[in-house]
Amino acid sequence: MPSLLVLNGPNLNLFGTRQPEIYGSTTLADIETLCRDTAASLGYEIAFEQSNHEGVLIDHIQAAKGVHAGIAFNAAAYTHTSVALYDALVSVELPTVEVHASNVHAREPFRHKSFIAAASIGVIAGFGAQSYALAIRALAEHLK
Amino acid sequence: MPSLLVLNGPNLNLFGTRQPEIYGSTTLADIETLCRDTAASLGYEIAFEQSNHEGVLIDHIQAAKGVHAGIAFNAAAYTHTSVALYDALVSVELPTVEVHASNVHAREPFRHKSFIAAASIGVIAGFGAQSYALAIRALAEHLK
Amino acid sequence: MPSLLVLNGPNLNLFGTRQPEIYGSTTLADIETLCRDTAASLGYEIAFEQSNHEGVLIDHIQAAKGVHAGIAFNAAAYTHTSVALYDALVSVELPTVEVHASNVHAREPFRHKSFIAAASIGVIAGFGAQSYALAIRALAEHLK
Amino acid sequence: MPSLLVLNGPNLNLFGTRQPEIYGSTTLADIETLCRDTAASLGYEIAFEQSNHEGVLIDHIQAAKGVHAGIAFNAAAYTHTSVALYDALVSVELPTVEVHASNVHAREPFRHKSFIAAASIGVIAGFGAQSYALAIRALAEHLK
Amino acid sequence: MPSLLVLNGPNLNLFGTRQPEIYGSTTLADIETLCRDTAASLGYEIAFEQSNHEGVLIDHIQAAKGVHAGIAFNAAAYTHTSVALYDALVSVELPTVEVHASNVHAREPFRHKSFIAAASIGVIAGFGAQSYALAIRALAEHLK
Amino acid sequence: MPSLLVLNGPNLNLFGTRQPEIYGSTTLADIETLCRDTAASLGYEIAFEQSNHEGVLIDHIQAAKGVHAGIAFNAAAYTHTSVALYDALVSVELPTVEVHASNVHAREPFRHKSFIAAASIGVIAGFGAQSYALAIRALAEHLK
Amino acid sequence: MPSLLVLNGPNLNLFGTRQPEIYGSTTLADIETLCRDTAASLGYEIAFEQSNHEGVLIDHIQAAKGVHAGIAFNAAAYTHTSVALYDALVSVELPTVEVHASNVHAREPFRHKSFIAAASIGVIAGFGAQSYALAIRALAEHLK
Amino acid sequence: MPSLLVLNGPNLNLFGTRQPEIYGSTTLADIETLCRDTAASLGYEIAFEQSNHEGVLIDHIQAAKGVHAGIAFNAAAYTHTSVALYDALVSVELPTVEVHASNVHAREPFRHKSFIAAASIGVIAGFGAQSYALAIRALAEHLK
Amino acid sequence: MPSLLVLNGPNLNLFGTRQPEIYGSTTLADIETLCRDTAASLGYEIAFEQSNHEGVLIDHIQAAKGVHAGIAFNAAAYTHTSVALYDALVSVELPTVEVHASNVHAREPFRHKSFIAAASIGVIAGFGAQSYALAIRALAEHLK
Amino acid sequence: MPSLLVLNGPNLNLFGTRQPEIYGSTTLADIETLCRDTAASLGYEIAFEQSNHEGVLIDHIQAAKGVHAGIAFNAAAYTHTSVALYDALVSVELPTVEVHASNVHAREPFRHKSFIAAASIGVIAGFGAQSYALAIRALAEHLK
Amino acid sequence: MPSLLVLNGPNLNLFGTRQPEIYGSTTLADIETLCRDTAASLGYEIAFEQSNHEGVLIDHIQAAKGVHAGIAFNAAAYTHTSVALYDALVSVELPTVEVHASNVHAREPFRHKSFIAAASIGVIAGFGAQSYALAIRALAEHLK
Amino acid sequence: MPSLLVLNGPNLNLFGTRQPEIYGSTTLADIETLCRDTAASLGYEIAFEQSNHEGVLIDHIQAAKGVHAGIAFNAAAYTHTSVALYDALVSVELPTVEVHASNVHAREPFRHKSFIAAASIGVIAGFGAQSYALAIRALAEHLK
Repeated sequence: MPSLLVLNGPNLNLFGTRQPEIYGSTTLADIETLCRDTAASLGYEIAFEQSNHEGVLIDHIQAAKGVHAGIAFNAAAYTHTSVALYDALVSVELPTVEVHASNVHAREPFRHKSFIAAASIGVIAGFGAQSYALAIRALAEHLK
Repeated sequence: MPSLLVLNGPNLNLFGTRQPEIYGSTTLADIETLCRDTAASLGYEIAFEQSNHEGVLIDHIQAAKGVHAGIAFNAAAYTHTSVALYDALVSVELPTVEVHASNVHAREPFRHKSFIAAASIGVIAGFGAQSYALAIRALAEHLK
Repeated sequence: MPSLLVLNGPNLNLFGTRQPEIYGSTTLADIETLCRDTAASLGYEIAFEQSNHEGVLIDHIQAAKGVHAGIAFNAAAYTHTSVALYDALVSVELPTVEVHASNVHAREPFRHKSFIAAASIGVIAGFGAQSYALAIRALAEHLK
Repeated sequence: MPSLLVLNGPNLNLFGTRQPEIYGSTTLADIETLCRDTAASLGYEIAFEQSNHEGVLIDHIQAAKGVHAGIAFNAAAYTHTSVALYDALVSVELPTVEVHASNVHAREPFRHKSFIAAASIGVIAGFGAQSYALAIRALAEHLK
Repeated sequence: MPSLLVLNGPNLNLFGTRQPEIYGSTTLADIETLCRDTAASLGYEIAFEQSNHEGVLIDHIQAAKGVHAGIAFNAAAYTHTSVALYDALVSVELPTVEVHASNVHAREPFRHKSFIAAASIGVIAGFGAQSYALAIRALAEHLK
Repeated sequence: MPSLLVLNGPNLNLFGTRQPEIYGSTTLADIETLCRDTAASLGYEIAFEQSNHEGVLIDHIQAAKGVHAGIAFNAAAYTHTSVALYDALVSVELPTVEVHASNVHAREPFRHKSFIAAASIGVIAGFGAQSYALAIRALAEHLK
Repeated sequence: MPSLLVLNGPNLNLFGTRQPEIYGSTTLADIETLCRDTAASLGYEIAFEQSNHEGVLIDHIQAAKGVHAGIAFNAAAYTHTSVALYDALVSVELPTVEVHASNVHAREPFRHKSFIAAASIGVIAGFGAQSYALAIRALAEHLK
Repeated sequence: MPSLLVLNGPNLNLFGTRQPEIYGSTTLADIETLCRDTAASLGYEIAFEQSNHEGVLIDHIQAAKGVHAGIAFNAAAYTHTSVALYDALVSVELPTVEVHASNVHAREPFRHKSFIAAASIGVIAGFGAQSYALAIRALAEHLK
Repeated sequence: MPSLLVLNGPNLNLFGTRQPEIYGSTTLADIETLCRDTAASLGYEIAFEQSNHEGVLIDHIQAAKGVHAGIAFNAAAYTHTSVALYDALVSVELPTVEVHASNVHAREPFRHKSFIAAASIGVIAGFGAQSYALAIRALAEHLK
Repeated sequence: MPSLLVLNGPNLNLFGTRQPEIYGSTTLADIETLCRDTAASLGYEIAFEQSNHEGVLIDHIQAAKGVHAGIAFNAAAYTHTSVALYDALVSVELPTVEVHASNVHAREPFRHKSFIAAASIGVIAGFGAQSYALAIRALAEHLK
Repeated sequence: MPSLLVLNGPNLNLFGTRQPEIYGSTTLADIETLCRDTAASLGYEIAFEQSNHEGVLIDHIQAAKGVHAGIAFNAAAYTHTSVALYDALVSVELPTVEVHASNVHAREPFRHKSFIAAASIGVIAGFGAQSYALAIRALAEHLK
Repeated sequence: MPSLLVLNGPNLNLFGTRQPEIYGSTTLADIETLCRDTAASLGYEIAFEQSNHEGVLIDHIQAAKGVHAGIAFNAAAYTHTSVALYDALVSVELPTVEVHASNVHAREPFRHKSFIAAASIGVIAGFGAQSYALAIRALAEHLK
């Protein structure tokens, strides 16, 4: 069964424990289950990772090459500041979907800038945990 | 059966006749069919409109109030320049999903600014015709 | 009896149906009555128009020449983006008062820019429906 | 009889002695009379003050609390530079109308920025001495 | 006989009735005659259109495909603000010459930005009605 | 026979030897012939000069006064950086047409700024060697 | 006993009468007592001044030379706009601590700029009346 | 005994070994002792951590929740660039004081921007090791 | 004997007591003597004023009308921030020379902006006390 | 007798033939005479040069070392754009006075920037030919 | 034998596996060999490190003090964003050469900003693997 | 023997006579010798030119085509301002290395912008005379 990487950036391990009006109340474990179920229904298995460390996220992206067919990537705060993650995505040339649980385009101006978008096939933002399910669906559709 | 408005802005009537490397080769009629089928499978009917006129798009948004349960809105070029469409969306207070077939966040800088996003629950961009299907799915999920 | 044009831009037809904390709860019909009464008390009749279409607003301004003695113009969202309305006002050379029901100068930064002001004798903003009555009074005083 | 403060900033004591094409030819004393008459006709008395000193203007605003029902404030050049006047207005929480004899929005770009507007209910600019009369009328209407 | 579209944007119907020091005193009808004569001498017929409506201009551009061999386009105020007209021109892929009667590059800074130029083969500005004749000549030369 | 100065700035001596997709493949000698023929057909002779030196270009402009009836000026790279050429043109008060073979308005952003335009009656850009012929025609028309 | 100057800028005389969520509810007299007690416990007496006048604040700074060993300075709104206060502090070369009751760095962007900081040894902001006590403690520590 | 986290960012382990004119000559171990003593005198114990890794700092902040009553945080260079640390602080909702040994507001412009300040109750900068003692005192006062 | 006003802004009373490498070591009294002697040699008497208060400087400028033939004005820090002083100078329409002892154009960027210059016939900066003598000479020459 | 270099930049050879309302009606020869007379009365002879060529001006500055005691430099348009002239002045380390006949600080914004000022002891602008006399006087005073 | 540190930032471990048109096709192991050989020929041994983690790079720089005589540092994407690496370099005060395989100054604008350059003796960019050899040569020459 | 052009811009003839802390104390003649020796050891002869004139530098670049195999170019101050030199380099399509003796990236901000870099294969800056030797070595390596 082909595989997708669902990669989560800094502070997303706190999902469901903070600001539920922005991120929703489900936990990251719930999201992992949602991703796994959605992927399975589309014929994919997933690896699900989270790290607060920019370097670890780069390591995960590099390691994805030849292992995963695509990446659903919620880079969280690093979305807006990390040239290094952009370079990593460009290097591995895997189809990537930028994901955000909140509608970053309607929040603080510094969240409107994305280094990830320029290395992605598309962006899905604002639908809470469902953003992930939609991203997996978009990846699967893209990989057809 | 509840209804959704799928609203399309300037030049989208040319879908499938221009720059297929950016917008894909399906026509707007194909997209309407895809939207109608996706919506039906989720228990919704749709109205599907397109106009090159900013004022007509405002009229459609105003008329949606009390008729439709939500809007999937591809404002195309007006996304980046129209305060009036923003005001219209804020006025009718219907859940709206911003849709783009291309990944606007990876194109010219003037396409990175969106007046629509600030009045939307979320954004889906970059997946060609599938962006619409994902948006309808996101709206339906949101309306649950 | 000399005449004034009271011209209203996009979404103002929704007056009284949206965000009453910003725009007040009176309808556009109420405002028309207020304008007509205020004008009559000063010896003027009025034409009262609203459109969501930038082009229609331009048409109204062009048609005002030789018909009306001045314009009270609430361009709403187009205030901040329309060079074309500025050009129309400059072309017809009628005394114009820029009107806003809300205090645009205290709202989002993109509402602080006005293309209309540079073609107007003055600006009145922030007094709800009374902004219109004050504008008509200012026009009448100017035309003395 | 309730009272309003009409407060005038730097160089307005020269009203009628300079640049009549911008400010009109009436003197500040004429304006005081116009304000007093307009206010009286609406059931208000006024205090009428002018100072070239930013600190004195702050003192006047602070002293207005509990004495006046509202402020018509032409801060002149300080409009564009004074955070301190903004803070004073926010502190006393009296309804304030920003007044300008000239249409500041159509003059030099540095006159388009107003710190006063953000602490005011509205703005009236461009009608010469009549700007003051309109401001008093707007305040009286607001205080109903 | 092959055909060219001469397309005119907002307020250009007022040609000859306003600011003759900028636009010259000939009317739009005079310009149509000049265009028709110039084109005829080069073996082309023309369609000559004007609208104050951005949407109508988009409609005209879309309709030009397969009908006209090129476009001489004076977008007037929309030159500086319309992403939608840029998208329309890019979509139809017809050779286009940007035309202005006045020297926009020597006027207000907001007239120095052109969305039209990026979708045009060239720009002609500043020669009054003759700008149109030169544009038709340039188009004819280009189409050889 | 009255005379026009056709003045060419830095690197234009390489015309026809570089980047033909931008500048066309004709040489500067070909352009001189085209200019001479076009001018002759309109009753003008021309002087045709090129220099890579900003100072020499200033000298040519100063020397044109009382000798030439107008200037067709392709300042090339100096267009975007030279206040001194602007001052020279303003000093001699000869009608000047800014010429560019390429469509500078569609190239790098630093080519969108022109110091020459503000001292010119108009701008012609994008038509290769024909830009010069059109400029001479525009000058001749202007001098009538 | 050595002495410190505690200097307060515009509107701080209203301490405790306005926006207690930002500035706390203690009055300026309470703060004076707190300062005096804190200073005394560290072996210093204080002079405590407030003025709404920029010029008076400059006078106080100039007069501090040779009289006080250091300054705790809450310049309030003038912090962000006054080059003159910066020059005064640089002139007298007394160790100065910039103080703010509110966390200015977390408020409006125009409060993030400080002319005072560049002439100070350090900054303390956000702790209400305690900001003053901490500043006196920091000054005393610095003067050891 | 309640506890506070004193958290130190990149390069602060070099305290006392570099640029003593900016940071003072005491070592980080000296600062730990000073913090421990100051905290003890106020009834608190402390945990004292330093890391050059942004991700490790995020981990420490997340782990502080439910363990520490507040944070004194010198994020050093990450202060100016890290959205992720801001998000971490917002997530754990612990009272935080931003600390700097040097007066960052008087150094290079890129050190004037702080992402930490917006998630802090206040800022203390410029007093060398004493900045930490003052921060602990401010936290203790805040927690009363 | 005709008279000139030599007007000095904030902190200039400290002349000769601070930063002699920038301002020179002569006192303001020395400068007054230099000005009086220079003026006398040219047939003028002078009034010599200094204030730290922006409002007092405005009062002096207004009072100069009809009394003095011109103004030599060192506005010091207010040069860069005061729209009100600009308005005062424009109001009295007296020939004014902007004076600075230091070369402000070679100091901090915020000293490169001058509101005074736009209301002056010229600027003299950088020559210490001699700047004043040169300014008086320039005024006298201008008044011939 | 010691010597000064009076150096003139582009288009200044046209002095007296253009825009007399800005530059005055005296010719550059008149200015040379004025400079020579002023210098002689102060015990200096002068060399007086003008060039439209930036490179020639650099050559003159380099050649001045060891020959002239100082430079009065009107760099005209190159003032605002030439890093190379700045480098030349810094290299020769001669006292230099920046001179302008017009008040550049009151003209177009691009004339407010000076690369020359940062390498000069001072600036004199706005007094027509007298600017040169004042500059020579300032140099002579500085060289005492 | 003295030693140099060759330090490599994020994604450089992928050298030779990505975008060969920008980075060349040699691997990082090849570059290590080239560096070792070049250094040996100049009398140096090298340590060669790579990490995707900003914190690890800081650790390496800190550990270099007293161990290595200089650093050849390719910070890759962190070049443009890391204040922390700048602080680390400033702290250890080792001669550092900034290295890039690609010509970063000719790529995206966000790669034109370097925090590393300000802490380096020089920059070498654009020569693929040879950039490293040149950097080692430059360091060795500098250390003579 | 193939040949390289070493081209030097304005003020570099003063090498060794100015600011030795930035440029080193060797003269341009020393650098020529170093370049000649380095080139000879790599099988190249060199032409070595310097000019203060932008136009002469352009002439040298144009003349290099077909004569030299590559260019080592220290454009000095023109690096930051000359579009014309960029155009010249693009025209001749010779491999070019940008050279600077000082580390321009660590000096004034206006030296961080390079028009030369975009037309070069790489950049070497900061190593004094050795920058030239490294550039020749880089060119020779590139030409293999």
